[in-house]
Amino acid sequence: MKVSVTGTGMTPFGELWNESVESLARTAVSEALEEAQCGIGDIELLVVGNMLLQQLEGRAHVGQVVSQAIGYQGPSTHVEAACASGGLAVRQGLFAVRSGLAKRVLVVGVEKMTDAGSGEITRALMAAGSEDEQMAGATFPSLYALMMLEYMETYGVSEQEIAASAVKNHLHGSFNPLAQFQNVISVKNVMRSPLVCDPIRQLMCSPVSDGAAAVVLESGDGNVEIVGSGHGGDTLSLAARKSRVSMRATRDAAAQAFGEAGVSIEDVNLAELHDCFSIAEVVAVEDLGWAKFGKGAALLSKGFGRLLGDGVVINSSGGLKACGHPVGATGVKQLVEVTRQLLQKCGKRQVQHARVGLTHNVGGTGATAVVHILRRTDE
Amino acid sequence: MKVSVTGTGMTPFGELWNESVESLARTAVSEALEEAQCGIGDIELLVVGNMLLQQLEGRAHVGQVVSQAIGYQGPSTHVEAACASGGLAVRQGLFAVRSGLAKRVLVVGVEKMTDAGSGEITRALMAAGSEDEQMAGATFPSLYALMMLEYMETYGVSEQEIAASAVKNHLHGSFNPLAQFQNVISVKNVMRSPLVCDPIRQLMCSPVSDGAAAVVLESGDGNVEIVGSGHGGDTLSLAARKSRVSMRATRDAAAQAFGEAGVSIEDVNLAELHDCFSIAEVVAVEDLGWAKFGKGAALLSKGFGRLLGDGVVINSSGGLKACGHPVGATGVKQLVEVTRQLLQKCGKRQVQHARVGLTHNVGGTGATAVVHILRRTDE
Repeated sequence: MKVSVTGTGMTPFGELWNESVESLARTAVSEALEEAQCGIGDIELLVVGNMLLQQLEGRAHVGQVVSQAIGYQGPSTHVEAACASGGLAVRQGLFAVRSGLAKRVLVVGVEKMTDAGSGEITRALMAAGSEDEQMAGATFPSLYALMMLEYMETYGVSEQEIAASAVKNHLHGSFNPLAQFQNVISVKNVMRSPLVCDPIRQLMCSPVSDGAAAVVLESGDGNVEIVGSGHGGDTLSLAARKSRVSMRATRDAAAQAFGEAGVSIEDVNLAELHDCFSIAEVVAVEDLGWAKFGKGAALLSKGFGRLLGDGVVINSSGGLKACGHPVGATGVKQLVEVTRQLLQKCGKRQVQHARVGLTHNVGGTGATAVVHILRRTDE
Repeated sequence: MKVSVTGTGMTPFGELWNESVESLARTAVSEALEEAQCGIGDIELLVVGNMLLQQLEGRAHVGQVVSQAIGYQGPSTHVEAACASGGLAVRQGLFAVRSGLAKRVLVVGVEKMTDAGSGEITRALMAAGSEDEQMAGATFPSLYALMMLEYMETYGVSEQEIAASAVKNHLHGSFNPLAQFQNVISVKNVMRSPLVCDPIRQLMCSPVSDGAAAVVLESGDGNVEIVGSGHGGDTLSLAARKSRVSMRATRDAAAQAFGEAGVSIEDVNLAELHDCFSIAEVVAVEDLGWAKFGKGAALLSKGFGRLLGDGVVINSSGGLKACGHPVGATGVKQLVEVTRQLLQKCGKRQVQHARVGLTHNVGGTGATAVVHILRRTDE
């Protein structure tokens, strides 16, 4: 069954001190419903992606929290898979439509992170790691630092080459009025920024953000169709994996999504990848098939993925790095960005000839990955 | 597409001091896989129902927590809808099979509650209420007490009639070796037990429990088939509802499930209802159609739903009251009990001529309800 994205909505991402989970959800949803030309009463199922509301604010039953905020009266599902909560919520919505459970599904990703102190948010995010990692006092920057170190040593790659991801994504963010950071940075800026956890520097890290994104999924033809979906899993613990420089969950999810879509990586014109840290984008570029293992950083540092280049554009929104990373919202925002690109609605950051787009959302250090492939169908 | 329950597993429910979320899940899963005659490698999707792990232990990415505990390598989804998390996880698993996403799905409900202090657990559970209710200092016993008071006043019903639900469920629990409470009680016992929140007494309340339950769902024919599924939503806030003595979410979920199944309430031989408090079972008996509004308590007090009576058996497991209520596990346990009854595996509490069974799982004070209908198909 064909499933189309008929509406998209999102708030600005950033430090939004006057907003709550409720107000953020309302803003994103009203935009998405307007675009889909339907009312809240036309929605048959609500799927909410959120990681932290329960932990930070002691509020559960998150599907119904959002329902009440947006005036929705029907059934809802809350999906949690750490930073992949949004992507997984989209996938649940997709299969609800495909299975005939609902003709029109609203998927909302939302997170309010900046109300928590920095120690509290670090601990809360670390909930997505393994118990061993938590007890060892690891943080996410430290785990990704291990990946980056091993990557550099295994393949003889420099920090500068990996920093290229952040530079590109800030460039793209500078064209996105909804991005948290709209300033252009250089490799030198990245290398001069403070060390968070050696070798990861501040400008290689995505920020703590507030924001919401929403999509309306409908059965039947539309201008933008979701043609492929994949979902992979791996151990929570980084130490338990065969490799720390490649994510099996991404490879599995991609193989599934490409198989369903009947397209290959060469057909993809734009992609939103999960660059929670710059090394994560490098690894994703390899796991998804654009570069051989160990060659992704060099490729990015030569301009691969940059807007106005020849080939695929990676993270036209600014990615997690520059657009921001309200964790449960990110996976839904990726669909919003790709859909708007496919509809030629992206102004200064518009990707020319965008026909096929990909989204890639990761939970933890790769214990979950969700990939979607979207296609413009009306031309 | 037909979906069958091919394996069931559950731990004893109770205060299980030596167990963890991981060990509980392992026990339930290994039993379910053995019954389904398959290995963990045959599972294509894991769906986990859990409410409190993130809040009580600061551990998220709950699908992958359980994956790692049971040695599962594939994709997982964590579903949260407060005390309806388990039922909603079953529904997600069902639609994963129906949509062709997976041929064999493992659904696990798990909760470890007794490690938290009583104040902590009261607060944690209250996360499922509305923000207004939380800020007003309401607890779940107090909200259900409002429902019970209004029910008694509206319909002229006595506390003793409502207590009949607890008496019946303790009788059934006395025949269930996995139940948390296996002692028989009388209406007099209930009325002499301490007031928790007037008019709710201790013996009208389900306990705080640890436990896990698991089912394997497969596409195709099997001895027990899930023939109907429904999911309803309502406001989080009790005050915002039109009625506090009937749950719209239950009525919506039931209408959907009966519609799918093509059976009516008269066809149901046994049901596991969500009796978190005795008044909840009374209301469910009415909302599901066994009694007119206001007549459920009188019916129960005359012996309706009791094992060895003539008609339908309600909560043969002992229900939430006597079997226990590890919140995320309850909705899955209901499927385990009904499946085992339909397969005539329930020993002293076996329901004779069980052909059609129903499960009913509620979140909060009725903001979510999930209903499933199962049928024995091999005779």
